[in-house]
Amino acid sequence: MAVGKPMQRVDGVAKVTGKARYTDDFSMPGMRVAKFLRSSIAHGRVVSIDIGQASGLPGVDGVFTFKDIPKTVFATAGHPFSMDPGHADVADRQLLTDHIRYQGDEIAVVVAENELTARKALALIKVEYETYKPLVRMDDVLADDAPEIHKRTRNIVKEHAYVAGGDWQQAKEESDHLIDGCYETQVVQHCHLENHTAYAYMDDLEHIVIVTSTQIPHIVRRIVGQALELPLSQIRVIKPYVGGGFGNKQDVVLEPMVAFLTLKLGGVPIKLRLDREECMVGTRVRHPFRVKLQVGVQKDGTVKLINFDALSNTGAYASHGHSIAAAAAAKAHYMYPRAVYRCQARTIYGNFPAAGAMRGYGSPQMTYAVDCAMEDAARSLGMDSVEFRLKNAVRPGDMNQIGKRPIMSPGLMECIEKGKQLIDWEKKRADWPASQSGPVRRGLGMACFSYLSGTYPVCVEAAGAHLVLNQDGSVHLRVGATEIGQGSDTAFAQMAAETLGIPFAGVHLVSTQDTDVTPFDTGAYASRQTYVGGQAVMRTAQQLKKKILDYVGLITGMNSQDLDILDGNIVVARTPATAVMSLQDVALDAYYDKNRGGQITAEVSYKTRTNAPSFGCTFVDLEVDVPMCRVRIDEIFNVHDCGVVINPLNAEGQVHGGMAMGIGAGLFEVLMIDPDSGRIYNNNMLDYKVPTIMDIPDLMAAFVETYEPTHPYGSKSLGEPPVLSPAPAIRNAILDATGVAINELPLNPKTLFKHFKETGLI
Amino acid sequence: MAVGKPMQRVDGVAKVTGKARYTDDFSMPGMRVAKFLRSSIAHGRVVSIDIGQASGLPGVDGVFTFKDIPKTVFATAGHPFSMDPGHADVADRQLLTDHIRYQGDEIAVVVAENELTARKALALIKVEYETYKPLVRMDDVLADDAPEIHKRTRNIVKEHAYVAGGDWQQAKEESDHLIDGCYETQVVQHCHLENHTAYAYMDDLEHIVIVTSTQIPHIVRRIVGQALELPLSQIRVIKPYVGGGFGNKQDVVLEPMVAFLTLKLGGVPIKLRLDREECMVGTRVRHPFRVKLQVGVQKDGTVKLINFDALSNTGAYASHGHSIAAAAAAKAHYMYPRAVYRCQARTIYGNFPAAGAMRGYGSPQMTYAVDCAMEDAARSLGMDSVEFRLKNAVRPGDMNQIGKRPIMSPGLMECIEKGKQLIDWEKKRADWPASQSGPVRRGLGMACFSYLSGTYPVCVEAAGAHLVLNQDGSVHLRVGATEIGQGSDTAFAQMAAETLGIPFAGVHLVSTQDTDVTPFDTGAYASRQTYVGGQAVMRTAQQLKKKILDYVGLITGMNSQDLDILDGNIVVARTPATAVMSLQDVALDAYYDKNRGGQITAEVSYKTRTNAPSFGCTFVDLEVDVPMCRVRIDEIFNVHDCGVVINPLNAEGQVHGGMAMGIGAGLFEVLMIDPDSGRIYNNNMLDYKVPTIMDIPDLMAAFVETYEPTHPYGSKSLGEPPVLSPAPAIRNAILDATGVAINELPLNPKTLFKHFKETGLI
Repeated sequence: MAVGKPMQRVDGVAKVTGKARYTDDFSMPGMRVAKFLRSSIAHGRVVSIDIGQASGLPGVDGVFTFKDIPKTVFATAGHPFSMDPGHADVADRQLLTDHIRYQGDEIAVVVAENELTARKALALIKVEYETYKPLVRMDDVLADDAPEIHKRTRNIVKEHAYVAGGDWQQAKEESDHLIDGCYETQVVQHCHLENHTAYAYMDDLEHIVIVTSTQIPHIVRRIVGQALELPLSQIRVIKPYVGGGFGNKQDVVLEPMVAFLTLKLGGVPIKLRLDREECMVGTRVRHPFRVKLQVGVQKDGTVKLINFDALSNTGAYASHGHSIAAAAAAKAHYMYPRAVYRCQARTIYGNFPAAGAMRGYGSPQMTYAVDCAMEDAARSLGMDSVEFRLKNAVRPGDMNQIGKRPIMSPGLMECIEKGKQLIDWEKKRADWPASQSGPVRRGLGMACFSYLSGTYPVCVEAAGAHLVLNQDGSVHLRVGATEIGQGSDTAFAQMAAETLGIPFAGVHLVSTQDTDVTPFDTGAYASRQTYVGGQAVMRTAQQLKKKILDYVGLITGMNSQDLDILDGNIVVARTPATAVMSLQDVALDAYYDKNRGGQITAEVSYKTRTNAPSFGCTFVDLEVDVPMCRVRIDEIFNVHDCGVVINPLNAEGQVHGGMAMGIGAGLFEVLMIDPDSGRIYNNNMLDYKVPTIMDIPDLMAAFVETYEPTHPYGSKSLGEPPVLSPAPAIRNAILDATGVAINELPLNPKTLFKHFKETGLI
Repeated sequence: MAVGKPMQRVDGVAKVTGKARYTDDFSMPGMRVAKFLRSSIAHGRVVSIDIGQASGLPGVDGVFTFKDIPKTVFATAGHPFSMDPGHADVADRQLLTDHIRYQGDEIAVVVAENELTARKALALIKVEYETYKPLVRMDDVLADDAPEIHKRTRNIVKEHAYVAGGDWQQAKEESDHLIDGCYETQVVQHCHLENHTAYAYMDDLEHIVIVTSTQIPHIVRRIVGQALELPLSQIRVIKPYVGGGFGNKQDVVLEPMVAFLTLKLGGVPIKLRLDREECMVGTRVRHPFRVKLQVGVQKDGTVKLINFDALSNTGAYASHGHSIAAAAAAKAHYMYPRAVYRCQARTIYGNFPAAGAMRGYGSPQMTYAVDCAMEDAARSLGMDSVEFRLKNAVRPGDMNQIGKRPIMSPGLMECIEKGKQLIDWEKKRADWPASQSGPVRRGLGMACFSYLSGTYPVCVEAAGAHLVLNQDGSVHLRVGATEIGQGSDTAFAQMAAETLGIPFAGVHLVSTQDTDVTPFDTGAYASRQTYVGGQAVMRTAQQLKKKILDYVGLITGMNSQDLDILDGNIVVARTPATAVMSLQDVALDAYYDKNRGGQITAEVSYKTRTNAPSFGCTFVDLEVDVPMCRVRIDEIFNVHDCGVVINPLNAEGQVHGGMAMGIGAGLFEVLMIDPDSGRIYNNNMLDYKVPTIMDIPDLMAAFVETYEPTHPYGSKSLGEPPVLSPAPAIRNAILDATGVAINELPLNPKTLFKHFKETGLI
């Protein structure tokens, strides 16, 4: 039995020994290097561009500007294609542009024999700009006289509004108190270890082959096809090992350009890799949100209504656009599902780097707003934060608000109880003074989250797997789902071993995806892979097992229904000690008997039509050094209900990573954009304060194992959830320690100083 | 309809533009070069070897000798694994040896940072030999006091004898004449354009990846596993484009060594490529045969018996060993199947390069013997050569002699009739003088052949194919069968298009095989691929078509049985003008509908249990310049019954290539081995006389299209057959012109001089 065991990662040895090959580890004879020319201004237009000197530089193969590109306008968001045109992503991007929308926008591209020559050529290009007023502040974007960042948009990408869960007016009337707040989150960046890198060439079939660090090879294929107006079958995308993505590689950033360049240059291999400074601004960032939130409560603590009014800024280009705010709102309903929800959400443009998908996909912003507001509501009633959450938390019998689907494994209350125990909530509450006044004050805080396990019913949820029984009785497993560091390959190998009844070491997982040969899957996003990919892996393993047992029946004359596979051997199901033959013997017969058999393989492409919510919470115990405006976390626990934990070791690692990211956004990180000029101050890892190991406390992960019946192994999402609740828990603990409610992020000394000053604390 | 049409090769553009990548076109960072140290003597033992200086040379990573290798003794023949130990290939090979068996035997190997350093290191290795008597002549090999080339073999690999087709004694009694002859063939080499090249490295899973120019990737995997005692699943073999093999790459020559070296050196990539001189001696050659043949005829020309006594010499190592002689005998029965056959065959060792598979696999040698003997028999009866063949040729109702299977598409008589017409046999016979006496004399000759379409029932005949319906309505086809220049990829694409009902251009064939992901197939040999692989392609296409039509039924509510696919559109079968929807629309729905479908794929692994004989003949009109001992071919026709011709253009190309190779062996080629020293005189393309375009006459290919009912498209083998009958036809024409029967090859001036001198002609 492999599921539920702390199996070592299938890619562990490869990664620590350096055997794992990432996109930039590959090279090809004659490969050229491409580099972008990026705008120095944040908003404006190119009046003239002179590439004469650059083109003439020896070693330069080509210089292409916005004048040379296809007219096609395309969308870059890594969503599965939708046959409903009303559901299409916003197409607002061309390969290059003369309309500058952020500082770093791509005006031209140079291809040269090496990077140094390419950089020299970039320096020789002369550009004259006409500048417009940069729009960074939300109010500036929405001002009546604001210039349009994209024509005929009034700077609005999209907006929507709805009420779910009941009658809004009635809920309002039933509320004893209405607590209002406005919560703002900042721009942060993914900071994955491996920058965006891609290369392309034309192969023997004159197809364009793109090797790229992506979460979504099959979607890259589709978007490049759309961007270059080529049939999808003429594009082949290969995904080697990926050094982190966090959603930033769920966008199609470099691939259309490398494909265009190799097409233009006769099929030679061309590599385009961003350095860190480019990656920080030229890929994607997290949408800043401003959420006005109203919570309606009864005196006993029952939440009757939650009213969001969310404003999300996507920056220069739509990318995932309004999907972020829409998904964030939808996923927040599950925590407290007996309230009536009213949602208004609007996504706007701004003159800063395009915001796209990032771990949590809007939910960190929305969870921050909701669970800060819940804390404020509890406090306004004088209720204990935990009691208040427990009173309103999801429980058996609750339904999803929008689709009216039952919530089948609601583990939130158990998570809260467990977190409360772990942090010793009651003892600390009892021991600590009711009111603190010294320079260093202790605070306890907590926050909850809910999340989903995919995108259904908004998007198609397809996954595929292929299994081959090898001659030695082991199997090769290929999945369309992509390992990007999260451990999905290991989970799939465990599932296959579990269902087949073979040792874990007997599953060889092919980690590279290649759209020409890999089963279709839309990729790594929405914390979908274990949940959605698991369906395909399980069904493929079942199919293979059935074929194997049927074949044993054919060989032996036994009834295949009476047989089973146990630890790599065919056994009699009722008397498993009775070995019939080894899997290797079955395989050898199937491959090599002259008159029967054949290679035994199985392949399933499966569409999941359920979507289970995961739950959890963060509990934090911290100290605030008031005069120094500094926070020190003493203890922090994330407690997760992700259904059955497929691999406790990897699950813990996943939670640790997410907590670190959540603490980073809570306490340290912000991409600093000058609101007047659009200039970016800290496009590098020295000035952008991603926390280091010195900044992160001991991270404690705990699990409440429910069983999710819509998943073959009882599991649900865990990829993104760990990032959701640390920031609001920290904010709530600071409020607990100081009495100051800080409704923005990050909670760094600068922010604390401002609020402590305003409130007279210092 | 794509089958039967002269479609352009799917790899044509890639090959003429240089886009096709062969093994040596790939490189990897840090790749090292390996070179063999080869023996300077032909028979003996290494007494001492000193690698000290070589190992110390800067840039040398390692020097390995016969002392450093695994003890495992393995077989290299590229046969499918047999579960019957009695049917296993002869294991007589280690990675390196101290027992020298031919001039060029592999004693040691150097790995260095580049080829120059490797060559320098080779020159620094000091070897002392003890020499034994080289055994080259067959009589020397079989002498009572001959030293054993392989211990406990008495220099015999294997022998067998049988009688088929009736009672031998009775057939002898019914014969009026017994005509005896002894026919000898020489050592020739394949001379494929691309020399043997392979490289290996260890991948992320610590599996050994071998990229190699091979005909048989799945068999390479198995043999490397056996040679290194590793599970097969830990070995991955990738086959890029191959520049010809002709059987020489149906042997596992370099792969175990590169795998061993990367294992020894921590997984670094190591490339081993042979230069032409090494390839000529260090790979494989064609077995020389000496066949004593007796034909028993009645006065009316009826052949009653054919008695082979064949001696085949495999050289230094068994490689395919006795299979060559055994297969050659078995495949010769089909031409004149009403005779009783008696066969004795023995394969022996000799101190010259190992003989292995080569186009025709023994049949060129056997066909030479049989159809020279048939000519001699016709002449001894005073019968016309054509009449005599027609009288005895296979006809409807005949059975295979050994398995008693009916011969379902016997087109030999029609081939003979067509050849006779084409060369204008009767007119030339009538016009030419009955006896010629001048210096330049004209001759007409012909010879027939039969061949099979695979190896069943001797070996397993497995093939696999995988199809994916792409979003744009095209398909990707992957096959386990290997394109090595013969055109099989194009044939498979035609078959898939035909059965699916889509345009030929809508089939994208993935030409590279990768044993981790490519369906199982044993590879390119025995002219099996169109016949055996076609079964898998057809069934896979049928499966995909059924899935597509079933899905259309699901979408539309129509009965899928009433639907068909025509030119890429779903139509109503009875009224094909009624388009239901395009294949692209079906695909988009299957991929992207949220509530139904999935990627539509199909995969079939199929074992063929039939084996159809192909037939044909060569007719030649030539002039012999007696004093100059030179032959000039004026007209030469090959006429083939290969069932339905899948692609007339490629079939003609295949026949042209085979005829050129047959003429080469008939008139020019011989690997010259000194019978006393075992020294090889002409291990290069300057001294080895492979014919150039200047040496080859216009080649005329003609076809008789029968329909072979055991194949889904009515087809049977064409890969090897064209090489079989040119040499005996030329020999028979020289006999016709000069009256001199020359029973050895090649028929070059040296040979002609010897025989013309002996017979007093000059």
